[in-house]
Amino acid sequence: MSDRMGILGLDIGGANVKAARLDRDADGTTAKTASAPLEVWRDPSLLAGELTALGRRLDAGTCSHAALTMTAELCDSFATKREGVNFICGAVHEAFPGLATSVLDVTTGEWVRLDRVADHPLHFAANNWMASALYAARTHPDALLIDVGSTTTDIIPLAGGQVAAVGRTDTERLDRGELVYCGVLRSNPNTLVRTVPVRGSLCRVADERFSFMADVHLLLGNIAEADYTCATADGRGTTPEAARMRLARLVCADGETLSMADVVCMARAVYEAQLSGVTRAALQVLSGLDEARRPGLVLAAGSGAFVAAEAAARLGMASAYYPGDPKRRQEVVLPALAAAHLLSLEIWP
Amino acid sequence: MSDRMGILGLDIGGANVKAARLDRDADGTTAKTASAPLEVWRDPSLLAGELTALGRRLDAGTCSHAALTMTAELCDSFATKREGVNFICGAVHEAFPGLATSVLDVTTGEWVRLDRVADHPLHFAANNWMASALYAARTHPDALLIDVGSTTTDIIPLAGGQVAAVGRTDTERLDRGELVYCGVLRSNPNTLVRTVPVRGSLCRVADERFSFMADVHLLLGNIAEADYTCATADGRGTTPEAARMRLARLVCADGETLSMADVVCMARAVYEAQLSGVTRAALQVLSGLDEARRPGLVLAAGSGAFVAAEAAARLGMASAYYPGDPKRRQEVVLPALAAAHLLSLEIWP
Repeated sequence: MSDRMGILGLDIGGANVKAARLDRDADGTTAKTASAPLEVWRDPSLLAGELTALGRRLDAGTCSHAALTMTAELCDSFATKREGVNFICGAVHEAFPGLATSVLDVTTGEWVRLDRVADHPLHFAANNWMASALYAARTHPDALLIDVGSTTTDIIPLAGGQVAAVGRTDTERLDRGELVYCGVLRSNPNTLVRTVPVRGSLCRVADERFSFMADVHLLLGNIAEADYTCATADGRGTTPEAARMRLARLVCADGETLSMADVVCMARAVYEAQLSGVTRAALQVLSGLDEARRPGLVLAAGSGAFVAAEAAARLGMASAYYPGDPKRRQEVVLPALAAAHLLSLEIWP
Repeated sequence: MSDRMGILGLDIGGANVKAARLDRDADGTTAKTASAPLEVWRDPSLLAGELTALGRRLDAGTCSHAALTMTAELCDSFATKREGVNFICGAVHEAFPGLATSVLDVTTGEWVRLDRVADHPLHFAANNWMASALYAARTHPDALLIDVGSTTTDIIPLAGGQVAAVGRTDTERLDRGELVYCGVLRSNPNTLVRTVPVRGSLCRVADERFSFMADVHLLLGNIAEADYTCATADGRGTTPEAARMRLARLVCADGETLSMADVVCMARAVYEAQLSGVTRAALQVLSGLDEARRPGLVLAAGSGAFVAAEAAARLGMASAYYPGDPKRRQEVVLPALAAAHLLSLEIWP
């Protein structure tokens, strides 16, 4: 083996860039991961620099290849997905000019060289779920992969070792229940509920950007402060007390007028709506499978894997955290890790 | 003690009449229960005869007192609740002329002699939940009683041994989340969902009376055929196969076009909506209590006690079946049993 054998997996989302580095030696493969918040829609010109910094953390200069997945092309700072895909590919090339980079074609599941992406840029939009699914199907040929991220949830059926999802574009996937636009950190609670319980009434919510699901999950003990990795809605801290004050504004109240118990009641109702939404979408996905192919196992992945595990219980299905212990936080970068692993199968003999 | 010491508890609902008989001897009290389906709204003139038959099963002729609760006054065969209450009281008097009968005043929690009901008939409408709540509060001073019946669910906070519910009329209770108009047998699934998953799509439902929640719960294994005590929507049997054929019609399909797995998927989505509805209503009720009075325990009662226990888990609360083992089916007649017990406290020294 040469000195430069590492593979860098990249997953460029609209709010976070995530990376995983895979190396192989005589004892097998080892993985390291890193991620950084980056609001691509605010200023795409920062992307190349952020990728360079992320690459430095993983010593990307000693890698030979990169495997790229993305969702950031949907950002409205790009006029079209086509423009977004091409921009992202350009930024990756700028940050890692020395790496042989491939991008996953979501329509075929195959890897394409970076310089060929411009031929069919839409084949590479929102392809990160396919990397996760292809990787998971190798070890779990029959399962329902539910990857709950910071803003979205992917629900991907695996059957007979194949990816059995119907949708390929985000729109098709939303339509089929394979993509649910809600996650555990940056999603706005006001997209999940029209009313919440407040002192015995059902109170309508404000359609402002006052709080995030991270506030809900922090208050319910589903995530720790260290997991609150997105920027807060008000720029203040990530303590339960700060979360309480933000979430109180969901009903145009504040930290003086609503107690912690009041706000926790609201938070539970919001979480209940999230769980119901994921459960119903999963039922839609399951209903689309031939009976003989309906899996019995949910693979719960992502920073919101706890949502997936709870949905599995509601579905009457077994569940397992994937790829491993949710406390290790490696799941947060599942698509990047999966991309590196998948590419390694092609380039490592 | 005289020969005639038994107390007959009665709960006259719109679709079922339920009775409990309480006796006391040197060893304590013993209870027997009985119930019968009776669609009061179809023909109220059958009520007195049905009560007589029910009384015969419990040997009511050897009772001295009766304790009456009701909900059947809401039937639209009565022009008003006033008319309904008076009619029901008349039928009870006709069936049990020899019993000293009292009726529970839902506004005060006190027992009033049958011949005084006409003074304020609305004080006695929909009073059965109050009997259950007063009875439960004696042994569980701080709890949330969730009584899931065939068509409705009562969610009643008990605090400091008092009934802490805010609503007194059905309308007030619906408004506060203390009454949810959905149960586990005769409720129509089309009131819970606008769409269900069908082969990968979300399909709109038919607003017909094709199936009941009993079909849903039978197919999911939540109830046994013996628990399917209401008439079926199509007059056919209570087997899983017959339930499947009824529920398929919810999306205008039939037993030929949808498989058991297809229909079970739909059933799960309907049950999920029921659980979410009960959970959210319970959160509304809890949100109305002073913080220091929010209970940690759910008392799960009624033929749908399993729904209440599952909702408790979603609320992060402990739960206990009330008054006892759900398999004994005594819970089905909780208000009648509670009424007899409560009256016994007043008339047995």
